[in-house]
Order: sequence, then C-alpha cells, then structure tokens
Amino acid sequence: MSAYRTLTAADAVDYARRYAGLSDAETLINAEEVGDGNLNLVFKILDGQGVSRVVVKQALPYVRCVGESWPLTLDRARIEAETLLAHGRYCPQHTVRVLHHNAGLAVMIQEDLSSMAIWRRELAYGRYYPQAARQLGEYLARTLFHTSDFYQHPHEKKAEVGRFSNPEMCQITEDLFFTDPYGSHDRNSYEPALDEAVASLQSDSDLKLAVAALKHRFLTKAEALLHGDIHTGSIFVAEDRLKVIDAEFGYYGPIGFDIGTAIGNLLLNYCGLPGLLGPPEAATGREQRLQDIGELWQAFAGRFRTLAAENTRDPALAESGYAGYFLRQVWTDALGYCGTELIRRTIGLAHVADLDTVTDAAMRHKCQHHALKLGKMLIMSAPHIDDAAALMACIRQGG
Amino acid sequence: MSAYRTLTAADAVDYARRYAGLSDAETLINAEEVGDGNLNLVFKILDGQGVSRVVVKQALPYVRCVGESWPLTLDRARIEAETLLAHGRYCPQHTVRVLHHNAGLAVMIQEDLSSMAIWRRELAYGRYYPQAARQLGEYLARTLFHTSDFYQHPHEKKAEVGRFSNPEMCQITEDLFFTDPYGSHDRNSYEPALDEAVASLQSDSDLKLAVAALKHRFLTKAEALLHGDIHTGSIFVAEDRLKVIDAEFGYYGPIGFDIGTAIGNLLLNYCGLPGLLGPPEAATGREQRLQDIGELWQAFAGRFRTLAAENTRDPALAESGYAGYFLRQVWTDALGYCGTELIRRTIGLAHVADLDTVTDAAMRHKCQHHALKLGKMLIMSAPHIDDAAALMACIRQGG
Repeated sequence: MSAYRTLTAADAVDYARRYAGLSDAETLINAEEVGDGNLNLVFKILDGQGVSRVVVKQALPYVRCVGESWPLTLDRARIEAETLLAHGRYCPQHTVRVLHHNAGLAVMIQEDLSSMAIWRRELAYGRYYPQAARQLGEYLARTLFHTSDFYQHPHEKKAEVGRFSNPEMCQITEDLFFTDPYGSHDRNSYEPALDEAVASLQSDSDLKLAVAALKHRFLTKAEALLHGDIHTGSIFVAEDRLKVIDAEFGYYGPIGFDIGTAIGNLLLNYCGLPGLLGPPEAATGREQRLQDIGELWQAFAGRFRTLAAENTRDPALAESGYAGYFLRQVWTDALGYCGTELIRRTIGLAHVADLDTVTDAAMRHKCQHHALKLGKMLIMSAPHIDDAAALMACIRQGG
Repeated sequence: MSAYRTLTAADAVDYARRYAGLSDAETLINAEEVGDGNLNLVFKILDGQGVSRVVVKQALPYVRCVGESWPLTLDRARIEAETLLAHGRYCPQHTVRVLHHNAGLAVMIQEDLSSMAIWRRELAYGRYYPQAARQLGEYLARTLFHTSDFYQHPHEKKAEVGRFSNPEMCQITEDLFFTDPYGSHDRNSYEPALDEAVASLQSDSDLKLAVAALKHRFLTKAEALLHGDIHTGSIFVAEDRLKVIDAEFGYYGPIGFDIGTAIGNLLLNYCGLPGLLGPPEAATGREQRLQDIGELWQAFAGRFRTLAAENTRDPALAESGYAGYFLRQVWTDALGYCGTELIRRTIGLAHVADLDTVTDAAMRHKCQHHALKLGKMLIMSAPHIDDAAALMACIRQGG
C-alpha cells in the first residue's frame, strides 16, 4: 500500500498515465483541479487537445471547506471506491466507473463525465431531464436490493457490513442531520430572518422525538449498502443518461435514508424554484419536480418488487407479499429522512444552491421557511402519508 | 494463540490448574464432563474433597448433538467469552464470571455455579424463585442499555458490531427460528398428532409474512449486544441469586429478541405445567409464571428507563420520552419473537423439557398444541397487545 501524500496537478497526470488503463496514456498532459465539494481534491486529466479523459479524485485528511482543524479519515476513499464498485456490479449504467483505486494514497481514477451536467445546476436553471428520476429510482432499486438480505447470503452480508463500517463519515450524518439543527450548535448556519422558525423547531418536543427515532434507525438498521449522500449534486445527467458519483458516505443503513435524501433534494429545488425562475417557469418546474418524485418512487418500488419476486434468496423474505410490506416501511422511513434533509440543508452546516442562490432576500427567506415547514410536516406525518399521490397532495397544500 | 485440540478430562484439570487463578490450584485433581447441551464439552474441575471449584468449557468444531457432519465455527467460544465479559462489566451480579479464555483452544474457564440450579429444571418441578424474573429483567436492562446507542459512542458501537459479528451462530437462529418451522424441513421434529396443526401453520400466509418481518429485523436491527439464546436452560438460580451462562449466540441484534426469548421460555413452562404437575400445583405454577413475566418486563423496562434518563450519551436519543417510545417498540418485537420461540421449540429441531418430558401422550400433545396456538397468537397480535396486563389477559383467554 502506498504511503499517503497529497498529489499535485503534475502528480495527478503522472498517476493517470500509469493507472487509468488508457491505451494512449502518453497523450495525457495536463490536470485541472475542479474540486468544488467540501472534502476532496478532484483533477480532470486532459489530453493535448484539452479534452478531459479521466478524473483523479483524492481524499484530503481534513474537511476541505473547514480546514485542517477538522481532520477526517482517509479510509473514506477506500469506502467510496468499494461502494461504487459494488453498486457498479449491480447497476453499471448509472454508477460512475472506477478505473483504479489505491487505499494508501486515498486516490481513485474514475471515468470522465464532462459530457454530462450536475443535476442540481440543471434543476436551478429550470432544465428538465424527463428520464432522470426514473433512472435514479432504477439505480436505487438495483444497488439496494442486491446488497440487502433479500439477495445477499447472510454470511456475506455480515462480512460486508464490516467492510463498509464507516464510523467517521456516519458521524457527520448523525450530527448534521439529526442533532445540530434541533439544538443550538456552532455549525448551524441561517440568517436572522429564520430565528423565530428555528426557535420554534428547536422547542418542538414531538418533532425532536420523531427525529430521535429517525437517528436511532440510522444508527441501527443495516438494511443495504447505501450511497449515503445521494443528493442532486452527486448526480450527473445528460439527455438520456444518469450517473451517480461521490459515495464516501457508503455504509449499511436503512434503505429509506437513500430514498429520502434523493426525494428531499428534489423538494429543495421545489422550494427554491419561485426564487430562481420567473413565475411561469417556476410553476412548470414545480410540476416537473412532483412528477419526478412520483416517478422516482414508482421506478424504485417497481424494480425492487420485480427483483424481489425473481431473485430473493432468503426463503422467509421470499414469502409472497413481503417485499410490498417492506416497501411500505421504506416509504415511511423515506418521508421522515426527506424531512430531515430539508431542515438540515436550510439551517444546518451544509446548504444547497437551490435555496442559497435566491438573490432576493425576502424571497429567499420565504423559500427557506417553506423548506422548514415542509420538512417538519414530512417528519411528523410520515406514518400517515400512504403513497406518492398522498404526498403530492400534502405538498400542494403547502407542507 | 494456542492450536486447537480437544481437551481430555486430564487436560482440563491441568488447564484449570494453570489458568483458573486459584491460590490452591494444586488441589484440583479430577474432572467430570457434564456437557448436556448441544454444542460443547463442559468439565467441572473437582478438588480432593470432590468439590467442583471451576468449570472448563470448550467448543467442539461441530454440533455435538448432531455430529461431525454439521461443522460449526470455533470462533463462537471467543464470542461467548467476550460477550460474557462485556455483560459482566455492566451486570456482574447476574453474569457468570469468566476467569480465563483462549480463542485458539476455544476454551473458557468460568466460576463454578454448583450451588445453584438450572431454572428450567426447577420450573419443571414446580419450584418457585420469586426473585428470578426481576433479576433477569435487571440483567437484560443493564447489559442491553450499556451496549446500545443510548450509551455507547457511535464509533465504539460500530467497532463492537464488527467484533461480535457471529454469522454461523446467527444462521442457526435465522434457520431454526424463522425458516424451518414454516415449511417442510428435515430438521423439524414433532409427533404425528401435531401434523394437522403444523400443516395449518405452514399454510398460513399472514403468519409467514409476520415471521418474515421478524426475521428481517433479526438480520438488520443492530440495537445492542444480545445474549442471543437467553432461555431458562441458560440461567442458574438460587434462593436470592441468578446467573446467566452460555452466550455463544451473542451478536448485535434487536433488543426484543432477548426479551422475547426469555418470556417465551416462561410461557413454554406455562404450557407444559398441566402435564408436569398435579392440577393444584400446575395452577399455582401458571399464576407464578404470569407474575414472572409481568415482573420481568417491569424490571427490564423500569431499569432501562432509569438508565436512559441518567446515562444516555447520545444527545438526540436523550430527548425526554424517547426511551419510553423505544421501549414500546421493544415490547412489540418481544411479543413476536416470543411467539417464534414457542413455535420452534415445539416443532423445530431443539425442543424443551417443559413440553417433551410430559409422559402422557394425549396431555403432551395438548400442551404442544397450546404452545403453537399461543405462539401464533403472539406473532399475529403483537402490535395490538399494549402492555403486560393485556398480555396476561390474552394468555388467560387461552392464546
């Protein structure tokens, strides 16, 4: 295993030449650092024509957006590569391809996706990808089914739970989703206009009880190998394609967490649209988001049910009707986790452009209030929202 | 680490002399093999007066009651010793003391409990230990609370889940509790008089759906370090004392599984008593069992609640009212698992003396039918039985 050192742009080019497995590796001559996330170095590796051919991603031993004062395990690079490889085995069409990885250097080479665009940005511009939600549902069903007890042998599953034990990254989620926003915490971040709404949230003991239950399920329910951070900024889209990246939060957790995070980010866009686009475009975009959410769930549940009917290996879980019963629980979990995503992205440490780039302050605060209200409604009403149609109705009623 | 070899009686004496830590080790001169269980060699190590001073327990690399055709991991000896040490840290008064263990030899030396009696045998004779149920509830609360996310740091908890990964022993439970009894399987064992009842059970798709959900929770819900096999044959009692032994099924699972197994074994005695004792003694014994079950739950829930109020470290789970909400779910889980214990002990591979030693065939079958009926009722009605009083009422109505 190689000893860790931070790669320079020149190192990254050299590394890609050696390990990317390109037949014309010598044409790689330049690297462009494009890491705009919170955690890593990301180099596009360019050839003589300036075409990006592969991406070299390296984990830094601290949280990039905070600095060296917040150290963070390099093991997340191994977890990310191994999660993507596991997901790629079951859904290659929607998982970024890992060409090489090295745990010692915390580095991974992945396919270049420059021809695609980050879904969050496209959504903010009102650009519609009618296949994307269905494709994401397909990705979630295939990856989560095949890493669950429906499909994995119980010995293999237990070994995988150990291989994907990810305590430091999980703790970030445990803190940022379920703890910080519900009490006074330095990492929380919101404008004074939200003070009253936040105080109301933080003194709502029924809400905090429901959030405790969601956190406890996140801590205990090892249902499948989650992506763990499946927001619209971790998803590349093109006209007919979708690829998921950034799996460093991968671990065995509740399936509803991935579903809820994905739906939550579509709803964050729903909340932000009136501040991002003119009224007719915003209204159109909102309808598309609701349709996206319905299609995501239908695609996920439909594919999961089909896979369960055809490929369940556990004789007890193969009982007719069990997959449907289980999916009902996943749905309830998903609505709750979706609510926590809306809240933590509005008042916690890590915000989203869908809300924060609304330039008009009054409109921005209105969008943020909407996200908080909708988040709280979802957490409290999750057990009573029976299906996607009922969810649409609740959202149209304003959360 | 020592290479594995099966100990002879003489080896066991020698081993105890060396490693039991007795100041008068040289007085140990004899060993009596008393293993009446399914899995292990168990030697009482005697001194010159014939007094048993310590117990040497060694795992065999196969299932003893079946033979070398069913191999079984020796790692269960390490898991057992480490589970007992972990439980002993939080409840020394009710956990057998481990004096020494060696993973390579799959051997453990534990304190001698010859002055106490196996609870199952005492119950079959109609002997009442009025402290036992409360003490067992205390053991369950202290061991399960302190190994749960209420108390353990999330990093420590995840490491412990790995340390106590116990795939082979868990698979025994997964198969014997949740799969075999609900379909035709060679390992099932029951008399022809039960054919009709078994056929009815195995064609009950609602029941099988509920059992699938219980199995799925057993596979996924890592709530605390369970004993994993806490039946009345794993419990020593004396007038004012109770000690738990035999923790080779230890793993991180749903708390309700331990509670349900414990209650289930008290109910197996309840079902068997009319065949074991004369009518007045049986009636008295049954009332004592119902009282035991109520006291076990009250002791468990009361202590868990107190520990949660005083010692919860997770800031979200510390929310007032959360422990109570969680215990309601544990109760529901426990009733379901209790039902599966009643059924699998009646028609599966491993039976209990409470039913099997009833000598009159017609009475034995009546007791067994009762256990099946009660088991099914508990699995199906678990979500609707609100508390111990409601459970008593259901049981008195005949299951």
